[in-house]
Amino acid sequence: MKVQIITIGDEILIGQIVDTNSAWMGQLLNQNGAEVIKIDSIGDDYELIQQTLKQAIHHADIVLITGGLGPTKDDITKKALADYFGVSLSFHEPSYERILKIFERIGRKTTEAHRQQCYMPDNATLLYNKMGSAPGMWFEHDNTVIISMPGVPYEMKYIMEHEAIPRLRERFPMKPIFHRTILTVGEGESRIADRIADIEDNLPKHIKLAFLPSLGMVRLRLTARGEQEETLKQELQKYSKAIEDRIPELIFGYEKESLSEVVGRLLKQHDLYLATAESCTGGYIAHQITSIPGSSDYFKGSIIAYANEIKMAQLGVKESTLKEHGAVSEPTVVEMVSGTLRLLNTDIAVAVSGIAGPGGGTPEKPVGTVWLAVGNQEQTISRKLSLGKDRIKNIEYASVQALNMIRQFVVEQYNSVTEVI
Amino acid sequence: MKVQIITIGDEILIGQIVDTNSAWMGQLLNQNGAEVIKIDSIGDDYELIQQTLKQAIHHADIVLITGGLGPTKDDITKKALADYFGVSLSFHEPSYERILKIFERIGRKTTEAHRQQCYMPDNATLLYNKMGSAPGMWFEHDNTVIISMPGVPYEMKYIMEHEAIPRLRERFPMKPIFHRTILTVGEGESRIADRIADIEDNLPKHIKLAFLPSLGMVRLRLTARGEQEETLKQELQKYSKAIEDRIPELIFGYEKESLSEVVGRLLKQHDLYLATAESCTGGYIAHQITSIPGSSDYFKGSIIAYANEIKMAQLGVKESTLKEHGAVSEPTVVEMVSGTLRLLNTDIAVAVSGIAGPGGGTPEKPVGTVWLAVGNQEQTISRKLSLGKDRIKNIEYASVQALNMIRQFVVEQYNSVTEVI
Repeated sequence: MKVQIITIGDEILIGQIVDTNSAWMGQLLNQNGAEVIKIDSIGDDYELIQQTLKQAIHHADIVLITGGLGPTKDDITKKALADYFGVSLSFHEPSYERILKIFERIGRKTTEAHRQQCYMPDNATLLYNKMGSAPGMWFEHDNTVIISMPGVPYEMKYIMEHEAIPRLRERFPMKPIFHRTILTVGEGESRIADRIADIEDNLPKHIKLAFLPSLGMVRLRLTARGEQEETLKQELQKYSKAIEDRIPELIFGYEKESLSEVVGRLLKQHDLYLATAESCTGGYIAHQITSIPGSSDYFKGSIIAYANEIKMAQLGVKESTLKEHGAVSEPTVVEMVSGTLRLLNTDIAVAVSGIAGPGGGTPEKPVGTVWLAVGNQEQTISRKLSLGKDRIKNIEYASVQALNMIRQFVVEQYNSVTEVI
Repeated sequence: MKVQIITIGDEILIGQIVDTNSAWMGQLLNQNGAEVIKIDSIGDDYELIQQTLKQAIHHADIVLITGGLGPTKDDITKKALADYFGVSLSFHEPSYERILKIFERIGRKTTEAHRQQCYMPDNATLLYNKMGSAPGMWFEHDNTVIISMPGVPYEMKYIMEHEAIPRLRERFPMKPIFHRTILTVGEGESRIADRIADIEDNLPKHIKLAFLPSLGMVRLRLTARGEQEETLKQELQKYSKAIEDRIPELIFGYEKESLSEVVGRLLKQHDLYLATAESCTGGYIAHQITSIPGSSDYFKGSIIAYANEIKMAQLGVKESTLKEHGAVSEPTVVEMVSGTLRLLNTDIAVAVSGIAGPGGGTPEKPVGTVWLAVGNQEQTISRKLSLGKDRIKNIEYASVQALNMIRQFVVEQYNSVTEVI
């Protein structure tokens, strides 16, 4: 199945935002056996929209359009589409009812623009958009499926996952594709590739292995294409096991699990409570943990000790420790751990102190120097990272390592054999 | 000047990488008075390259092509271009000499592929690429300039900045384009559009207004195109001011500032220190604040009181308050603020307590109920939000509102007149 993507909106053309939607859609479509042949980014231009649509309909089986469905005057996608298909726009009462309900609940009034947003092309099948007020629209024209969605990423993603892909799978014959994704943390792409090189080289032609790195984690995705569902699944299982047996200590989960979910599951399994003491990560670790629903079952809270004053006053880090070793040191994070265990009364605590950058580095402790420690009443493990100069990347990477250290600590300290399900 | 960008390479189509090159080029071209009308991303496909080039040459004055100039089999851009222009490829000795020198210096041997890389279309003017082995190429065809560059970002950027833009400025008269972006928070796109409807309707034809919403914030972007730099800037200023005067309380900044940066700037300006007490936002507010370099100048830390035990033990929230009103209530967040001011010894504190979801709601306090409070020793302001059911969106939206409340509080309490620069 050939797909062409059209993104509508000036903000991409003037470089104000980067088009991340197309990459996301491309990946999702690939997983579903469809191939993106072209991505066009154009402005809110009536004629250009129609010209581009015409060319796309000619070349592709599926055309995905994002953008231009908002309530303001620069949003002209709907009109351009309706005119191209030669249909009228009609008022869609249910869409308006829905907007009214949402606004009622938040105690605000709707405007004329909201009414205008509810006119839909007569030939459109509406696709439910849980994340926003503008529904997606599905059209069929000249044997091509055209789907129009809002450009706001979380709205587009919802419609793609819940409405578009299921319908596309029904509409088009897709050769079975099966994936098995192994999630690893702790080593980079090249090292892992080296360690499993022979397994990769011996994969049959119809099974591919992709390495998808992201900030300290690498996803290994095996993809099998073919005719026989049962055979494909068995093969995937076989090669997956070969990889797992080769690099067991790097694996933290499968498919779409996040490290935070896995950590949460482990803590809950062992009836443990966690607290964090963060300096340079500034709450990011706590945020990762609390993004998971139900985290109050295993997470009590954090002290973000951004200033040294707080490290001393709240966490009991000794002034002499800070004077002698500095805030970014092993003794400091070890004291932060014991202080947190005591103050927040949890079973396990993790502490991080480092120099996120871009400023603050010294010759002895350059930007990117981060100390981590995780411990319970009996034992504390500590580790030093030497990262780069990018502040945000350092914060995110240190948080990934901290979560992984908690995971490893629970696995090792609480004698878990069955935790990686 | 109308520009069309063509990116060549499968990795964008399969979503393996995000196309950041186009956004970067778009910004640079805008600044130089050129307008990107279309961005096409295609694979390494001979015919599609020629088709896309033909369409681009027809519509644009300048065509920028990135990708496909490497030494491997899938790099076919040069051949496709030479054949399109009807010219031969000839060996370019100086390019080869240069590659030989580079490889000599790093002690490695060149390959046949490197020789092949030195065949250039006869009608190409070569553009020096300091950052890599493949030069850029400049062509003129049908009154259009076509520039082909490597896809590797730092190589493309070098050629654009040092070779392409200077030549383009010489070749074309550039009409200035100017933008003015106003950042707002607190009301949705439709409401704002309503409030400034008459201003928008009365904009002259050469000035456009775009609304760019994202999670509780809306960017308003005015774009002016014309001949006279001075006049355009004055007009932008005039219409910007008209909008600002209409919705002053919604405006938090301009251009690319983030709310966190603005809050930081205000706190620093008034020599104030901030701490956060977070429950449902789980550290996300602190993370937003500490993402800004230099935030230690105005941020001391946080208590993430995820469990009620922590609200009581650390923040001094009274047990009777929790019993009578619950954790998600005005009295609780007000007590969280005073507890934080005392404990972390700051000038200002913000507290959040709510039900992020998807579970945890009740008829009186459904999912999405969030109480916020911000205060200093003298005064505390509180506010209740009624959000949706999406956990992550609730966390992010509540954090945006919290940051805005801090902003408004500092502006109102500390008599700032000039803070919105």
